[in-house]
Amino acid sequence: MTNLYNDTIVAPATTPGTGAISIVRISGPDCFQIVDAVVQLTSGTVSDAAAYTIHFGKVFAHEALLDEVLVSVFRAPHSYTGEDAVEISTHASAYIVQELVRLLLARGARFAQPGEFTRRAFLNGKMDLAQAEAVADVISSTTSASHRVAMNQLKGGFSAELASLREQLLEMASLLELELDFSEEDVEFADRKQLETLLKTTLEHVERLASSFRQGNLIKNGVPVAIVGAANAGKSTLLNALLGEDRALVSDIAGTTRDTIEEVLNIDGILFRFIDTAGIRESLDQVEKMGIDRTFRKLSEAEIVLGMLDSTAPLRPQLESVCSRIDFRSQQLFLLLNKADLLDAEWVNKNVTTINSFVSSTGNKAVIIQLSAKDGSGVQELKSALKEAEKGLIPNADSVFVTNVRHYEALVQAASALRDCRTSLSAGIPSDLVAEDLRRCLSSINAILGTDLLDPEVILHNIFRNHCIGK
Amino acid sequence: MTNLYNDTIVAPATTPGTGAISIVRISGPDCFQIVDAVVQLTSGTVSDAAAYTIHFGKVFAHEALLDEVLVSVFRAPHSYTGEDAVEISTHASAYIVQELVRLLLARGARFAQPGEFTRRAFLNGKMDLAQAEAVADVISSTTSASHRVAMNQLKGGFSAELASLREQLLEMASLLELELDFSEEDVEFADRKQLETLLKTTLEHVERLASSFRQGNLIKNGVPVAIVGAANAGKSTLLNALLGEDRALVSDIAGTTRDTIEEVLNIDGILFRFIDTAGIRESLDQVEKMGIDRTFRKLSEAEIVLGMLDSTAPLRPQLESVCSRIDFRSQQLFLLLNKADLLDAEWVNKNVTTINSFVSSTGNKAVIIQLSAKDGSGVQELKSALKEAEKGLIPNADSVFVTNVRHYEALVQAASALRDCRTSLSAGIPSDLVAEDLRRCLSSINAILGTDLLDPEVILHNIFRNHCIGK
Repeated sequence: MTNLYNDTIVAPATTPGTGAISIVRISGPDCFQIVDAVVQLTSGTVSDAAAYTIHFGKVFAHEALLDEVLVSVFRAPHSYTGEDAVEISTHASAYIVQELVRLLLARGARFAQPGEFTRRAFLNGKMDLAQAEAVADVISSTTSASHRVAMNQLKGGFSAELASLREQLLEMASLLELELDFSEEDVEFADRKQLETLLKTTLEHVERLASSFRQGNLIKNGVPVAIVGAANAGKSTLLNALLGEDRALVSDIAGTTRDTIEEVLNIDGILFRFIDTAGIRESLDQVEKMGIDRTFRKLSEAEIVLGMLDSTAPLRPQLESVCSRIDFRSQQLFLLLNKADLLDAEWVNKNVTTINSFVSSTGNKAVIIQLSAKDGSGVQELKSALKEAEKGLIPNADSVFVTNVRHYEALVQAASALRDCRTSLSAGIPSDLVAEDLRRCLSSINAILGTDLLDPEVILHNIFRNHCIGK
Repeated sequence: MTNLYNDTIVAPATTPGTGAISIVRISGPDCFQIVDAVVQLTSGTVSDAAAYTIHFGKVFAHEALLDEVLVSVFRAPHSYTGEDAVEISTHASAYIVQELVRLLLARGARFAQPGEFTRRAFLNGKMDLAQAEAVADVISSTTSASHRVAMNQLKGGFSAELASLREQLLEMASLLELELDFSEEDVEFADRKQLETLLKTTLEHVERLASSFRQGNLIKNGVPVAIVGAANAGKSTLLNALLGEDRALVSDIAGTTRDTIEEVLNIDGILFRFIDTAGIRESLDQVEKMGIDRTFRKLSEAEIVLGMLDSTAPLRPQLESVCSRIDFRSQQLFLLLNKADLLDAEWVNKNVTTINSFVSSTGNKAVIIQLSAKDGSGVQELKSALKEAEKGLIPNADSVFVTNVRHYEALVQAASALRDCRTSLSAGIPSDLVAEDLRRCLSSINAILGTDLLDPEVILHNIFRNHCIGK
């Protein structure tokens, strides 16, 4: 194959300094010669090695042994990038990796830009742009559902949907062209009905994909859940009770970055994002008001609201305060009767009746759960109820979801172009103008796949700059 | 080969969730069958694959594609552990790694204990114990010098020294045995002189190795440097000036754990540990006194003390306070004339003269450096002086250094046994008792190498429990 690039890039593909093994990845036309200049194989050279073979070798730096390494050889086009490529496996030492990379740079390799390996894979035709973008999502997925959506996109599930859309659009285009050809003869197009039907189903298809973004976002970033209630209602105790066990579970396997996103909870493979609404109360102070405004905005983003009620305090004002903050059209309310451990069963039952009648009086619905955030009773019921609510939000986790803002925006543009198309068609606008709308739609779809890019460098830079080095 | 172990272990060998690639490592007699049950290769099976080959495959979990992976095949005894082994390379996702490990566990693998791969390498004769212990040091080395010492130990440099010691001890033992054989005939041993000479050189050898521990420690953990001086003398400004650039350098390559050991500085490949002595002042408060006691203990561990002097304040009391805290027999003093930028040259020269005459009056020596921690002038001179001082502390970085407390203790015991040996010999104690001392010495040396272990399980557990999982 001919190489699109004439330079060879290198970068660590793992985080050195932890674990047992580090990998340095090198890809490009000169990678075999560069590695041969740096690694002394026990026998033979990388340049002569067969594809998919592993070789033992030594690396020397500053006249001393830097490390004994394993070299894995990949030959174009059968590599991640589609180029000749080598992976060098070292001891997982930051120092060794740094020195090895320096040696490879000294022999003519260039330090890779973020995401450049994946970018080359795209430009060498190993994957389309939607697939390339999915690589970062696959790596950052932490739940079964988000992983499945990202992997489906990586393996071309989303691209296949777009391909079928493209086919529909091309069919429409050819129908229009047919009409165009006969336009001078002023012959009314025979199959205008067919075009209209096709337009309708295609628009529905695009709108369905665009609207999957909300659900895709819930899968990728977690279902936003707000906890509201008075300061002493036990909000943070509940959060700790919810997070408690699962934190331990995560650290079971390896050092994840969980501690920096402390409010995210994985309940049996479903991600929930808990929004801290501490501090919602009346205030005259200007600065405090700004904080409260932000809290309210965050609250309005929640799909589920947990209203914490203190069973040991008067319920009515608590209920009024919680319900006044909910948009029942788009948000689900869970009323949590906390501190249930402090009261006898009869009293609790009476409270539940009070809550029920209050909620029905407002004409709304709420799930009522008795719990004790302190001793953990009822927390399991809450988790089950959250999982059940999530099922309602995301009916079928196996279908295709849009999770990428760029894709979403392109689909919204495609839908808008199709709507213009329909308006033009029904208004009897000349076919060549209708064809222009169709081209706009096609170009939006193509931009997702990375074919037919208007300004490829700009778009690619934006897409890959958020990738890690070495990806 | 026969397998020492009949179970197969698995663990991630890289930290998932960062970088591009994660590696899951599996080793043991059933690893090929287990991997074949989990990974569907494009063609053939791992069981049939040749050693040192790489294979593309797919892993399915929960009836969906978990990942496409690369499988590297190693056959006993040519693997890290000396057993049949496989490395599975996945996308660097914590979720994928966790699921893959679960699948392998479900097929009969066992999750590896910390350091268990290296432990198997030792028990399968791939390396001795001193080498196995060096693996963790190689991985954690952050400077050229510490890396060189650790790599030398990993490649058997230290083991070779111990082997030559063993030979000397065995020669002594045979000389003693000779005497023992003739003892009934009451024949005075002909070569007692030879034995005494050998004993002397061996003891010197052991003592030299044991005493290298102090230097080995400086290389491994950094040269401890204390900064003392009044609160407004500019200690933290200096620390920032010293750390400033190098912090940026480190983050150049990859996410190291540098930010958790903020007081460690790598100056051109030499590690310095800066000890914070803030808060040394007279105090009557009991709690504060405890803190000050701890600071003084830390100060006494420093090899180099930086005495910060404020040029704009009276020098004499500052000099007295700094010098009273130094043990000039074991510590080097650098007097830093800070805020030199605020004064004219004449004034500075006068100050230098004052300092010089004060230091000579105490009969001690100090390096005097003018600097401005604020604008950075003189900081480079300080770094050069620190490097120069380090050269005096560690004369030859290429020799063998003991860096491991266990080894140091074994060498101290060996030296003690040899001294007993010498005492017994000169006191005319019977040869069989002298031979007992010799055996004690040999057993200490053997314990370092891991041959002839008295209670291998206990010792091995202690050694490998500090390794990471997957190593």
